[in-house]
Amino acid sequence: MDATPTGLDALFRPRAIAVIGASRTPGTIGNTVLWNIVSNGFTGAVYPVNPGAKVVHSIRCYPDVRAIPDAVDLAIVCVPGKGVLDVVRACIEKGVRGICVISAGFRETGEEGAARERELAALCRGAGIRLIGPNCMGLLTTDVGVKLNATFARTFPRPGGIGFLSQSGAMGVTILDHAEDRGLGIRMFASLGNKADVSGNDLVSYWNDDPETKLVLMYLESFGNPRNFIPTARRFTRKKPLVCVKAGRTAEGGKAAASHTGALAGPDVAADALLEETGTLRVDSVAEMFDVAQALVSQPLPAGGRVAIVTNAGGPAILATDFLVSKGLKLATLSDATKDALRKLLVPEASVANPVDMVAGAGAREYAAAMPLVLADPGVDMVLTIFVPPITLDPVGVARAIFEASRGTSKPVLGCMMARVAVLDEIKRLDSAWFPLYDYPEDAVRAMWNLLRVRTLRDDDLGEPVHVEADRAAADAVLSAAVARGGGWLPALDAFRVLSAYGIRIAPLAAVDSVDEVVAMAGQIAGRVALKLDGPAFLHKSDLGAVVLGLEGPTAVRTAAERLAAVAKAASPDRPWQFLVQRMATPGTELVMGVRTDPVFGPLLAVGLGGIHVEVLRDIRFGLVPATPVTARRLLERLRAYPILKGVRGGTPVDLDKVVDALLRLSALVNDHPEIAEVEMNPVFARPDGVEAVDVRLRVAPR
Amino acid sequence: MDATPTGLDALFRPRAIAVIGASRTPGTIGNTVLWNIVSNGFTGAVYPVNPGAKVVHSIRCYPDVRAIPDAVDLAIVCVPGKGVLDVVRACIEKGVRGICVISAGFRETGEEGAARERELAALCRGAGIRLIGPNCMGLLTTDVGVKLNATFARTFPRPGGIGFLSQSGAMGVTILDHAEDRGLGIRMFASLGNKADVSGNDLVSYWNDDPETKLVLMYLESFGNPRNFIPTARRFTRKKPLVCVKAGRTAEGGKAAASHTGALAGPDVAADALLEETGTLRVDSVAEMFDVAQALVSQPLPAGGRVAIVTNAGGPAILATDFLVSKGLKLATLSDATKDALRKLLVPEASVANPVDMVAGAGAREYAAAMPLVLADPGVDMVLTIFVPPITLDPVGVARAIFEASRGTSKPVLGCMMARVAVLDEIKRLDSAWFPLYDYPEDAVRAMWNLLRVRTLRDDDLGEPVHVEADRAAADAVLSAAVARGGGWLPALDAFRVLSAYGIRIAPLAAVDSVDEVVAMAGQIAGRVALKLDGPAFLHKSDLGAVVLGLEGPTAVRTAAERLAAVAKAASPDRPWQFLVQRMATPGTELVMGVRTDPVFGPLLAVGLGGIHVEVLRDIRFGLVPATPVTARRLLERLRAYPILKGVRGGTPVDLDKVVDALLRLSALVNDHPEIAEVEMNPVFARPDGVEAVDVRLRVAPR
Repeated sequence: MDATPTGLDALFRPRAIAVIGASRTPGTIGNTVLWNIVSNGFTGAVYPVNPGAKVVHSIRCYPDVRAIPDAVDLAIVCVPGKGVLDVVRACIEKGVRGICVISAGFRETGEEGAARERELAALCRGAGIRLIGPNCMGLLTTDVGVKLNATFARTFPRPGGIGFLSQSGAMGVTILDHAEDRGLGIRMFASLGNKADVSGNDLVSYWNDDPETKLVLMYLESFGNPRNFIPTARRFTRKKPLVCVKAGRTAEGGKAAASHTGALAGPDVAADALLEETGTLRVDSVAEMFDVAQALVSQPLPAGGRVAIVTNAGGPAILATDFLVSKGLKLATLSDATKDALRKLLVPEASVANPVDMVAGAGAREYAAAMPLVLADPGVDMVLTIFVPPITLDPVGVARAIFEASRGTSKPVLGCMMARVAVLDEIKRLDSAWFPLYDYPEDAVRAMWNLLRVRTLRDDDLGEPVHVEADRAAADAVLSAAVARGGGWLPALDAFRVLSAYGIRIAPLAAVDSVDEVVAMAGQIAGRVALKLDGPAFLHKSDLGAVVLGLEGPTAVRTAAERLAAVAKAASPDRPWQFLVQRMATPGTELVMGVRTDPVFGPLLAVGLGGIHVEVLRDIRFGLVPATPVTARRLLERLRAYPILKGVRGGTPVDLDKVVDALLRLSALVNDHPEIAEVEMNPVFARPDGVEAVDVRLRVAPR
Repeated sequence: MDATPTGLDALFRPRAIAVIGASRTPGTIGNTVLWNIVSNGFTGAVYPVNPGAKVVHSIRCYPDVRAIPDAVDLAIVCVPGKGVLDVVRACIEKGVRGICVISAGFRETGEEGAARERELAALCRGAGIRLIGPNCMGLLTTDVGVKLNATFARTFPRPGGIGFLSQSGAMGVTILDHAEDRGLGIRMFASLGNKADVSGNDLVSYWNDDPETKLVLMYLESFGNPRNFIPTARRFTRKKPLVCVKAGRTAEGGKAAASHTGALAGPDVAADALLEETGTLRVDSVAEMFDVAQALVSQPLPAGGRVAIVTNAGGPAILATDFLVSKGLKLATLSDATKDALRKLLVPEASVANPVDMVAGAGAREYAAAMPLVLADPGVDMVLTIFVPPITLDPVGVARAIFEASRGTSKPVLGCMMARVAVLDEIKRLDSAWFPLYDYPEDAVRAMWNLLRVRTLRDDDLGEPVHVEADRAAADAVLSAAVARGGGWLPALDAFRVLSAYGIRIAPLAAVDSVDEVVAMAGQIAGRVALKLDGPAFLHKSDLGAVVLGLEGPTAVRTAAERLAAVAKAASPDRPWQFLVQRMATPGTELVMGVRTDPVFGPLLAVGLGGIHVEVLRDIRFGLVPATPVTARRLLERLRAYPILKGVRGGTPVDLDKVVDALLRLSALVNDHPEIAEVEMNPVFARPDGVEAVDVRLRVAPR
């Protein structure tokens, strides 16, 4: 490192640091951060800055960053929020390359703070300075060449391969504490606070290129720019595991939108889809994140989900079996050769089928002998070892035996030792690289399940969006006109035109104004027709009696048209309306397809089976736009009612490729046209010969 | 205690104990058990028995229990299995009142052991001796008047109000270890082993009458006699919480029965139903059991599910909110008065809506002031306190403040302190009666959810089975004849007669032998008819083309009957068959009802919506027999498709009372007739005017 470090290196590999707002008062942030830097052995120089102090923590103090005689790479800012901008201007003059603003008093406090934050970001951007925070708890790195603890947390973690970022300062403190309790080593940590400059994307990208960072854990409460996150995270997860706790699963409850399909969507399904598309492992809790991290730091990824259990006690093995089956893992079937070899080895009361229950007397000798046999069985992908220490046996010896016997295997080995905390602590202290030990069998099984998920996510190929042939000009013309009118729901015929332009098949439709025209139009249609009212008053047509189906012959058509005209005049005296005449579609399996736009994630594709499946059973799936053939098909496959589409018990299978194709066309449409706010196609008939929509609605955003 | 203790008191309140098989060899069970009794301060006398030793653990040893000069209440037997019966005979001569056989070598080892176990049980029963085991890890009580640790576990728990029974010895060891780590006090513990005499029922009953036992935890792997368990456990749970981990949720997979309805049943759904009927809280893991036990020992039960969160950090409060909403609890809405009072108290950045986020600076003072306000809010049922200790604040002081501020409240207060284990340990040591502290917000929320479940289960009134008017003689006649024939599937007309005798309405049915009779019979039926083939070859009629529906007029009937006759002759040349002529039922919402008999739990009632609901979505519910109006209705209410029965979006509601009535009649039938092995009614049409079954099948067990 000859040159002054730039980019994120200025933050994580500084050679000289100024702590601006360093304080002599114990317990203050300015006092603690400086002491954390000094006491944890920062390899460079640190300069306290405080016009009111001469010395802080025995180090000469400067009144201003500009007064420091040497170059400064990184400034840690702890002055009150209102003073931050002046400090930053001084830092710019000084030529500082990175700034971490711990101070609060920005966007989180209201408009004045938000303005201050915008200016802070602009100042840094203008000077080419990378900024962490404001309103954060700092950053740290355990790199032996740097050894920097620029946080006010009590815990400086042991060195290790984990990159960890937290949007929340409090969760950062907590997570560092818990990581230390579990003996997990951290490579770098940053608390991002308000994310005025450096984002999760930046850190994931930085850690992608750091060979010492082996996996990354994230605690997030929001996504800044989901679209940017996708390529960065996807590149990362091809090489290294990325594990995320995303809080706010249920916060969207109050934001339910008005339309049926939309009402079931929400940012959390989008977060799920986003994280899956990036290959990120989403876990539900911090505990689950640590459980899988413990396994990831020492164990390989499994080739599959077949678990063997080697135990000296039946009870916990039953609990583990229950849980692994419920998680979709499988109890491995051991080969006869393995079982024969185990039988020779173990007491007659032992069970040599999986779970291999070596019974209470089993100790280090039995584990040492059984493990290689079970690990060598080609039907086994992972091994869970369970040990309940009876009085006469040495748990540490058993753990050592399991470790030695598992050396060199390419299969993950996890352990559950149901013993006093003190015993476990003793074992954990011996060597954290052995194999992960859990207190309860369920925790170990969940970690195995997550290991397999990491593997699956890493190898998952979602493909690329396909090019869709479409008459883009035709769709553009209709949509531009709608935007010019101020947006809103399109007349049915316009919606029909837009969707048809993208190759989505809709039962042929005409809009006319008079009863005579209805009769004339119906006469040109082969077969039976449907007659509907269209207009702003008839968004939910069937609720208003604005639909008549299956009409045959001019008399029936005329009678129905006259009745609908009366309904229309009564229900919508002041607003425009038209008749819609539509050829009756051949029925099929009823689907609902649609799009809803989320303020953060953009358009979300929705699909489900119609009727009770959506309305009662809420069996609907959401995906990101643009969809790929893989992601679109997965939406269908994950419906509980998917077997119906495939044709169960004599039912007719629908043409799934055509359903996927319709979803891809819908995806392309809304991807090409950000002005589309909402699409609802309900019902869409899926049949062996393809897909045909009957009712389509499309809303354009105002402006 | 003047008299010799009898019954379970001989086991848990002995005044003199013989340890038969006491050993001088360290690490043996006979050595450890004696030392555990002595070293934990048993208040009575203990006598080692071993013909090969003069002294064990400095206590004079006797060659035989009969040689002991004083009376002996309890014998702990650790000799090898083959010697146990002789020892027990000696104990009977000696007048021992209770025996605990730790020795293995009984039912678990095969038929020879099983015979030995039967003789052991018979000997004890004949002598009026209560027996725990064999093949167990012993028992203990912390009662200050007894202080007995007759186990070989390392841990003698602290005194407390928990009764704990474990079917598995290894889980017993584990659970005692974990209870101690959590500071949970135990009143009595027993490991039941093979349960040759003393069962879970006995212990629950015993602990029901022990005022010092405040709650009972159970680890079970099987139910001995579910029917006996119901009244015992129900009586207990009206007074005290009963929490159960029942292992083997998924073990039934392989036992799936052949018929559609039955295939989805299994002992685990029966265990669920049984535990619910007894008011027992079933939890999924040992960790969850401890989490709720920690809350139960110090907190009242909540009146409802509205949770307030008081925190100094946003992140964990969001995680707690996500999880509580997903569990069906509610985020309490604080009154304006509460919010105003909080606003005056807290810094401006604080959020006074629930979660009450007092922000990072909040310490003991803020918690002390906020807690009474939140607890007093009538919209709050429980309070979760979260504290992430920043550097400058004292976590112990905060915990003390929360405790003091919650004194005297009738609402549960739980805590999540996200801190180092060392800090938590310090707080936990201060006073275990304060309030339960959890490491993660999700654990605290799950404990709250379980507290509410305990309350709901305690107050749950399932009512009694109702008397069903039935022509029992008619049903008896048909069933007795079937039993006499050796059981099996009944002819359709017989099944019809049995079910009709119990008042279950079935579309009228006749069985005839010839085409001419078919035509004649159809002529007597008003409206359209269905024609079916009946016989052993036609159990699944529609798969075989053995059904023709909606026939009208003699020509159509004759043509169909001739075609079916051809089908019958081809498919069933050697076996008897008949025509069934049935009036077409008016369609309604399709239900499936049935009964499947489980070897442990007896008959299980099943109900679901027909077609895809059962076959694809597996939306079916199982309940115990006899059902009550409440349990029968609950089966329906818990179907995902329940809204369909109530009539969604313009659908017609069915007469739910009539559906419940049909279930109660089916329940009464199989309760009165244990010879019925299986009933399947599919479809049953539920309509606004009642319930009518179309196809009914009934199987009688052989013998």
